[in-house]
Amino acid sequence: MKRFETIAVVGVGLIGGSIGLAARRAGLARHVVGIGRRASSLRTARSHGCVTATTTNLARGVSEAELVVVCTPVEFIAAGVREVAEHCPAGTIITDAGSTKEQIVAELSSGLPAGAVFIGSHPLAGSEKNGSQHARADLFEGRKTIVTPTPRNKSRQVSTLMAFWRALGSQVVKMTPAEHDAALAVTSHLPHVLAAALAAATDEDLLKLVAGGWLDTTRVAGGDPELWRQILSSNRRYTLKALAKFEKVLASLHQALENDEERMLVQILQAGKRSRDAVGS
Amino acid sequence: MKRFETIAVVGVGLIGGSIGLAARRAGLARHVVGIGRRASSLRTARSHGCVTATTTNLARGVSEAELVVVCTPVEFIAAGVREVAEHCPAGTIITDAGSTKEQIVAELSSGLPAGAVFIGSHPLAGSEKNGSQHARADLFEGRKTIVTPTPRNKSRQVSTLMAFWRALGSQVVKMTPAEHDAALAVTSHLPHVLAAALAAATDEDLLKLVAGGWLDTTRVAGGDPELWRQILSSNRRYTLKALAKFEKVLASLHQALENDEERMLVQILQAGKRSRDAVGS
Repeated sequence: MKRFETIAVVGVGLIGGSIGLAARRAGLARHVVGIGRRASSLRTARSHGCVTATTTNLARGVSEAELVVVCTPVEFIAAGVREVAEHCPAGTIITDAGSTKEQIVAELSSGLPAGAVFIGSHPLAGSEKNGSQHARADLFEGRKTIVTPTPRNKSRQVSTLMAFWRALGSQVVKMTPAEHDAALAVTSHLPHVLAAALAAATDEDLLKLVAGGWLDTTRVAGGDPELWRQILSSNRRYTLKALAKFEKVLASLHQALENDEERMLVQILQAGKRSRDAVGS
Repeated sequence: MKRFETIAVVGVGLIGGSIGLAARRAGLARHVVGIGRRASSLRTARSHGCVTATTTNLARGVSEAELVVVCTPVEFIAAGVREVAEHCPAGTIITDAGSTKEQIVAELSSGLPAGAVFIGSHPLAGSEKNGSQHARADLFEGRKTIVTPTPRNKSRQVSTLMAFWRALGSQVVKMTPAEHDAALAVTSHLPHVLAAALAAATDEDLLKLVAGGWLDTTRVAGGDPELWRQILSSNRRYTLKALAKFEKVLASLHQALENDEERMLVQILQAGKRSRDAVGS
């Protein structure tokens, strides 16, 4: 595994902070530079040991980095990568940790300085908590990270990036940006939509009676609305497709319940159980 | 708190077994008789310390009980209570642990032997696991138990039953059967419907990519399809009402996403977060 002299993390929240912690624990980099806009977030990241140095000056922060991970909200990733590409050494691998890929990779498919390298990543890890005070060195352990190289990326650079995520504990999966977005629409963005709608549809006076089922089913609705608005907007097409498929299944279930079609009702519940049981807790 | 010489539990699964364990731990009863149809389940319950005696003979099992808790699947509760009422001493308090109340209480509002007392209960505890091997003495601790007395029930008996659930660690809430069913439709039955539909709508080849969001949102879909079919059928009216309200919110969210109405999208996500944040993890 390649060791880096310096890596930089742009946006030191839960994910960025955990990348820093995990990279430091694994001895992957001598210096981990945390770059952000707010001095208070940078202080938190440093005091939690996520980074070895911090700066609000992106140009300076990436000037010696061999690897830069842009961990900003989805909507700022492409612009962030462009800015990094202007200031980092040629050949530096720039990646991200965004929840959507097609739009970001497409936006960055042209206009980067010669020699700049962007390869998309998405570590399937996180939580409804924000901030590097919740960062964990083991956040990526046993979790998948999807990388979405394009034909423009050199295989040696893709291998270096994949080895980096593996060294953080991830299992790395290669997909096209479109495959990624179609999959994540079903496995992450649709669940968020449903959790939010269920929580929003629950009258306040019933909240005192919620138990395990409601709590589990709505958990992700605690996530940041603006971050999720960006994710859903950025993956609109596939999320709408996943939503349409869900609505069809829900309509069947609705009809089965309405008409008291016991067999159909049990069939759908069984299909759900089979799917759920296949993945463990 | 009244101590019982003998209590009986009909149906010794996760809930029945946990009632036995908790009652024994709290010293609420000298004898806890476990009643069931399958010798193997009864053996499991006894070997886990949930009960002090077991029988497949319901008439004999309840013959000395001062309190009987019927913990069978919803569809068998009313018949179970009738059978208990025929064989237990007059004045014995019979209750249940069913997830729906209106239908059960209505079915039992007439035709019971003189002196028989039924008061509905629903402990808001459980898990997607079944069987007394998963029973826990602390299953009810800090959880709510709803009791749904009717004007026919004597207040002394209602008090005794409420004190019993409190002694198991529950916070007890009194509601009418209809209030209970309307509330649980939103807080439990609708989440189950959505979890099952989401799991059923997820293609098998995507299951390898699911992470926290999907896993939380679908967790309850691992529950027993036939038990849940009974619950949903038994609470059809209110579940359909809750579902209709959810579908309206989902349609707004769908439309906001389709039309890229950022403000509306954020508003719904914010409403969901407010609701979710109000109850903690």
